[in-house]
Amino acid sequence: MLKINQHLTGFQCIRCEELHPIHDYHEGCPKCQAQHRPASVVPVYDKTMPDVVWSGSGRGMRRFSHRLPYCSFESLGEGDTPIVDLPRLAGELGMDRLSIKLEGANPTGSHKDRMSVQFVARAKDRGAHGVVAASSGNAGASVAAYAAAAGLPCIIVTTPAISPPWRRAIEMTGAEIIYTEDSLERWAIVRRMVRDEGYASATNYLDPPVGSDPWGVDGYKTLGYELAEDEATADIEAILVPTARGDLLWGIYQGLADAVSAGRRSSQPRLVAVEPFPRLEKVLAGQDLRSHYPGRSLLVSIGGATVTFQSWLAVTKTRGAAVSVAEELALADQRVLARHGLFLELSAAASLTGLRRLLQGGDQPPRSALLIATSHGYKESAGHEV
Amino acid sequence: MLKINQHLTGFQCIRCEELHPIHDYHEGCPKCQAQHRPASVVPVYDKTMPDVVWSGSGRGMRRFSHRLPYCSFESLGEGDTPIVDLPRLAGELGMDRLSIKLEGANPTGSHKDRMSVQFVARAKDRGAHGVVAASSGNAGASVAAYAAAAGLPCIIVTTPAISPPWRRAIEMTGAEIIYTEDSLERWAIVRRMVRDEGYASATNYLDPPVGSDPWGVDGYKTLGYELAEDEATADIEAILVPTARGDLLWGIYQGLADAVSAGRRSSQPRLVAVEPFPRLEKVLAGQDLRSHYPGRSLLVSIGGATVTFQSWLAVTKTRGAAVSVAEELALADQRVLARHGLFLELSAAASLTGLRRLLQGGDQPPRSALLIATSHGYKESAGHEV
Repeated sequence: MLKINQHLTGFQCIRCEELHPIHDYHEGCPKCQAQHRPASVVPVYDKTMPDVVWSGSGRGMRRFSHRLPYCSFESLGEGDTPIVDLPRLAGELGMDRLSIKLEGANPTGSHKDRMSVQFVARAKDRGAHGVVAASSGNAGASVAAYAAAAGLPCIIVTTPAISPPWRRAIEMTGAEIIYTEDSLERWAIVRRMVRDEGYASATNYLDPPVGSDPWGVDGYKTLGYELAEDEATADIEAILVPTARGDLLWGIYQGLADAVSAGRRSSQPRLVAVEPFPRLEKVLAGQDLRSHYPGRSLLVSIGGATVTFQSWLAVTKTRGAAVSVAEELALADQRVLARHGLFLELSAAASLTGLRRLLQGGDQPPRSALLIATSHGYKESAGHEV
Repeated sequence: MLKINQHLTGFQCIRCEELHPIHDYHEGCPKCQAQHRPASVVPVYDKTMPDVVWSGSGRGMRRFSHRLPYCSFESLGEGDTPIVDLPRLAGELGMDRLSIKLEGANPTGSHKDRMSVQFVARAKDRGAHGVVAASSGNAGASVAAYAAAAGLPCIIVTTPAISPPWRRAIEMTGAEIIYTEDSLERWAIVRRMVRDEGYASATNYLDPPVGSDPWGVDGYKTLGYELAEDEATADIEAILVPTARGDLLWGIYQGLADAVSAGRRSSQPRLVAVEPFPRLEKVLAGQDLRSHYPGRSLLVSIGGATVTFQSWLAVTKTRGAAVSVAEELALADQRVLARHGLFLELSAAASLTGLRRLLQGGDQPPRSALLIATSHGYKESAGHEV
């Protein structure tokens, strides 16, 4: 049933470009890790891998299965989320075009399903004892659902502050929840489960961190493929991506890079990371990628004090940027988007707030942009709104 | 921008088959209404209307716009929801095949968006003062979102018991909420707003009731089209549809009837209405369609004491059935589905409970079935689970 892509030849470090055999790399590139410069690895495929069938038939991520690490996997209906045009809002912002990609249409209501479906396939196929994820909500709900579908034990490590809808979504699957106050303590628990108990982790547990499981992260490139397929957004200048450790950012970069290689796109749009307080923004200004950049915010899905190499690389390679947004402005934009018919999670609505910052920045404000709405609005309690 | 389908010639009563001119029929067929036998009308199109382009290109309900009352409308990304195969659960039930259609992937998280997008287009185009809906949650969140997108004032009449996530989804759009304890009182408020204040109502306000606004209900046939397109579910024997007043049931019937007419399907599967207590079940056994069949249940999205002619007709024409399900069994099946990776609203999970009843019934238990998962699970508070 589960089947590894026969064109997969190994993994490659996105920093030192060292090639590694087919294996699991929860801790990124071993060579860079030894040099205390953690960096993700990505799957490498041979030249005979078939190209994406642009605008092909079929529905969902399975359309792209020939380009994924597991080309046969158990689907819950992930992928092919809508792209909606927002002409009225574009007009209010003085832009030519504004579109939004609704990742809340995925089975557990967020983009994370694109990762979980590949991550869980890998974990099951290699006989992992179970799966684990450190999550404030979306990754937990997603990994728990796919683990349940695969019949794998699942543990989600989260904070006691997790909102009731997310908690319930995780509990209903039969997954176990472990609560810890501190996000670094979360990582310690996950690390122990991976190193000592044979669990596969969907999420990072190192500090400084790497990206999430590379088998899973490769699933995110399907979002890039879907964007590259869409004629209406072909000339989009900037893509605004709510970002914590940049798995999705990287996946979109990778998918669009494949589209450029295949001649489907002539160039990459600028990828803009939206964050709740300056982290990547500081790193792009010259500070150390491996430092801590702490802050507090209601934007829980993109919280955390750390930056990853993959985020830095995706933004740098596309001449993009990182913009931090104040939570009160994101709350206002959550309401703006709802008043255009789109009720989104706060961290997803922050993509609009990030766009406003980009437009005010003066430096080449984009005439057209696409927002990545990572998740719908039903997951946060009303109490989360100040 | 908004454009009525040029092939639309009028409306026809589904009971007496009287033809009526293009207009608004919130109260169903005027002739049947005068005889105290309320029945819906449906749009009628001329013979030159193009057929569905089966498995055509494009994404979402717009693929079918040439078959809809408004062939140009403002989309929020509705339609093209996933169909997921559940082989493990099929095995546990002793069936050959079990599939599920995830309507929670629509923009506001339920099937209602297929209706709202057409209903709001009509209301805006005819210059309605605003829109109104009586709703326990999903219809309210959906109508409010599409009204917001269209810039139309919106009032949702609901009960104080509405769950906080639904309430918040409605409030965020800027819609006004009116709370009443009693569901018949809800209808009186809506009736007054339609008759005296120039509002368009998405939902019924008569007792005995008719179906929802016929411009909107016609949007549901796209769900039937998507089923008819799907090769994997071509031989499905029964479709289980969580049902209150049968708008969705009727739309699926209509869409599949079109597919039979077009030669896409050789016959209709049995349509099975799933209800929280015996209503349609009693009517099919000979009791009066217009009586009250009261009951209390946690399955709020399919609650209410009334039956419609459209429900009766869709089930009767497909040799279907109505099955009532106990809420404690639906709660157990909500957990079963979550443990297969699908976290659904209780009323959606009840489709599985209905299937179990059908299988136990002895009378031609289906070998294959498809569940309509009307909505995802994030909308009910944990407190709604007993």
